[in-house]
Amino acid sequence: MSKFLSQRLLSLAPYVPGEQPQDKKYIKLNTNENPYPPCKGAFEIMNDTEAANLKLYSDPECKLLTKAASNHFGIKPENIIFGNGSDEILAFAFTAFCDKDTGAAFPNISYGFYKVFAELNCLDYTEIPLNEDFTINPENYYNAGKTIFIANPNAPTGIMLSVSDIENILKNNPDNVVVIDEAYVDFGGESCVPLINKYENLLVVQTFSKSRSLAGARLGFGIGCKELIDDLQRVRNSNNPYNINRLTQAMGAASITDFDYFKECTNKIISTRTYLTDELQKRNFAVLSSKTNFVFAKSSKTKGEDLYLKLKEKGILVRYFNKTIINDYLRITVGTDEEIKSLISAIDEIEV
Amino acid sequence: MSKFLSQRLLSLAPYVPGEQPQDKKYIKLNTNENPYPPCKGAFEIMNDTEAANLKLYSDPECKLLTKAASNHFGIKPENIIFGNGSDEILAFAFTAFCDKDTGAAFPNISYGFYKVFAELNCLDYTEIPLNEDFTINPENYYNAGKTIFIANPNAPTGIMLSVSDIENILKNNPDNVVVIDEAYVDFGGESCVPLINKYENLLVVQTFSKSRSLAGARLGFGIGCKELIDDLQRVRNSNNPYNINRLTQAMGAASITDFDYFKECTNKIISTRTYLTDELQKRNFAVLSSKTNFVFAKSSKTKGEDLYLKLKEKGILVRYFNKTIINDYLRITVGTDEEIKSLISAIDEIEV
Repeated sequence: MSKFLSQRLLSLAPYVPGEQPQDKKYIKLNTNENPYPPCKGAFEIMNDTEAANLKLYSDPECKLLTKAASNHFGIKPENIIFGNGSDEILAFAFTAFCDKDTGAAFPNISYGFYKVFAELNCLDYTEIPLNEDFTINPENYYNAGKTIFIANPNAPTGIMLSVSDIENILKNNPDNVVVIDEAYVDFGGESCVPLINKYENLLVVQTFSKSRSLAGARLGFGIGCKELIDDLQRVRNSNNPYNINRLTQAMGAASITDFDYFKECTNKIISTRTYLTDELQKRNFAVLSSKTNFVFAKSSKTKGEDLYLKLKEKGILVRYFNKTIINDYLRITVGTDEEIKSLISAIDEIEV
Repeated sequence: MSKFLSQRLLSLAPYVPGEQPQDKKYIKLNTNENPYPPCKGAFEIMNDTEAANLKLYSDPECKLLTKAASNHFGIKPENIIFGNGSDEILAFAFTAFCDKDTGAAFPNISYGFYKVFAELNCLDYTEIPLNEDFTINPENYYNAGKTIFIANPNAPTGIMLSVSDIENILKNNPDNVVVIDEAYVDFGGESCVPLINKYENLLVVQTFSKSRSLAGARLGFGIGCKELIDDLQRVRNSNNPYNINRLTQAMGAASITDFDYFKECTNKIISTRTYLTDELQKRNFAVLSSKTNFVFAKSSKTKGEDLYLKLKEKGILVRYFNKTIINDYLRITVGTDEEIKSLISAIDEIEV
C-alpha cells in the first residue's frame, strides 16, 4: 500500500476469485465454467479479417450485438446495455443507483462481489440473512429503503426465488432499484426479463460466461426500462465507452443467434446436474435444489474443508467457502458426465 | 434519466468519442487509430484452440502478459497492472488516489476524459491553462495539492514535455501522485518509465491502442513502484478482477514481444507525420510540433469547423473540437501515405 491511497479504501477486502493452481492438470469444477466450447459462430470469427480490424476501436454502441440481443429477448435496443462481464454492469449499477443516502441490501450468503462493491463505494449496506434452509424470504426485502441486489438463482446455494416472489419485492420497493442478477438463470430458471416494462425499478443482469461458454471473452449485460438503461449508459460513457472489444461483440452476437446450440449445452448440463444430485444423495449428501450449473452439497461423513482438500489431492478442484453457516458445503460445478463420474469415484475413494 | 439515478450524477457530461458515421466509406483520420494491422502473432492467436478455451475465465493475474511486458520494460512483474484499455487504468487511478480531500489537476486542453472522471468521482478539480503556444508550463503544477494527470505528449496538441520537466513536477509534488499518460509516447517521445524506481509518486500509463494496432482488443497498462501498483490492484480486484479477456492477454504478449514490427510501424508513422506536417506548412497551415500519431493544425484560410465539414463531405474524417482556443484547429490522425495524400489533395480542392 502506498501513502497516497485514499483513506476510504484502507479497509477494503477485495473479491477472491476461485483458485487457478498451475502445479498439475486438474478437473476444474470450481469456477462454474461451462464444460462445452462456445458456439460454432465464435470459431468462425477467429479469422484474418477480424484480426486485422483490431487496429480499429470497437463500436461503442455495440450495434450488431444489441440488435441480436434485442431480437432474442423481444425488447428494444434501448432496453439493454453491455458490460465487460456482468461484474461491470453490477459496478455501474452500484455507481448509478447507490450513494451516501441510498445504500445497498443483499443476502448474507450470495455472490461475494456485492459486499465488495458496497465497500468500494463506501455505502451503508445490509446483509439480510437467509432462512435456515438457505432460501430467501422475500418479505425481508420489502421496503428496504436501499438498492437491492439478489442473485436469482442465488449463489452459491443454487436456489431460485419464483418470479412472483420477485414481483412482490419489486412492488414493495417502488422507490428503489431492485437488481436481479440472473447469471445462472439459463439452467432451468425463469427469467424476470419479461417484467421490465411492468416495473420501472427492475434491472435484470445476465452473463455470457456460464450458459454461453464465453467466460474468457468477458461479456455481460443489463436489461431494464429505457430510463434505467440510460442511467447506466451515462455511467458507462463516463467510465469506459469502448468497454467491449471487437471480437467479443461479434462472438456475443453469434452466440445469442445460435439458440439450438445454447439449448443443447444447457440441456446437457441440466441432465448432468440431475445425475450428480442423485449420486450425491445416494451417498447421503445434503444437496440443495439447484437451478444453476453447480450444486451446493454437504457430506454426512467429511467436513467441507477436508473433502475439498482430499479432492484437490486427487486432481479435482471444487469451491470451498471458509465462512460460517456454509463451511461444510462445497460448491461443485456441473462439468461433463465424464468429469462428474471422476468426481463421484474420487468421493467413493475418500469416503470408503 | 430515471428517478433512481444518484443526485450526484445529475450534471455529469459523459465523454464523447469520435464519430463513427456509417453512411459511406470514409478515410478515418479522426480517432488516432494505427493504419497498420497488429503484429503477426495476433493473427496466429486466432485459432480453434483459443476459441474453444474461451469457455474458461481469463487469468486474473495476466501472468504471461505481465512476464512479456516486464521483460520488455526491464521492470518487475509487481510494477505493472493491465486494464481494459488505458481508460480503465485512469479510472482506477482516480478511484485510488483521489477523494473528497484530494482532488485532481490537469491541463485545460488535454484528453477530455480527465474531466469526466473527475466529475464522475465528484472531485474538486482544477483545469490548469496551457501557455498561449499550447505548451504546458511545468511550474504551474508545482505543489498542486492534488493528484496530477498529464498526457505526455499532450492531446490534442501533440506537444511533449521533457522528462526533466516531468521530474521537476514529480519533485515538487512529493505528497501527491503524478499520472503521466503516455498513450502516444511511442511515436518519437521519451518515456518516464525509467523513473518509476526513483519517484514513488509516479504512475506511467500506456496503451496498446495506438502504437500496437490493438485499439479493438482493449488493452492498456500502468507502471509504477510496487506500492502504487498494489493500490491499483486493490481497486481492480474490488471492481473487475477478470478485466482482460483471454485473447487480448495473448495478443498483448505477442505484440510486446515483436519489437521489430512495432518499430517498423511506428517509424512509418513518424515518417508520414513529417510528410503531412511539411505539406500542411507549405499550404500555410500552423502545425504544432507533434510527437504522436496525429498532428494538430490550423488553416490560414478556412475556419476549423468549415474545413472539418468540407473534408467530411469529401469522405475524409478528421477530429474537430467545438471548444474555444482550439476550435480553429483540426486533429488529423497520421494514416498511411496514401490516405494522407488523399487528405492533402482534398485540402487543395477545398482551398483553391
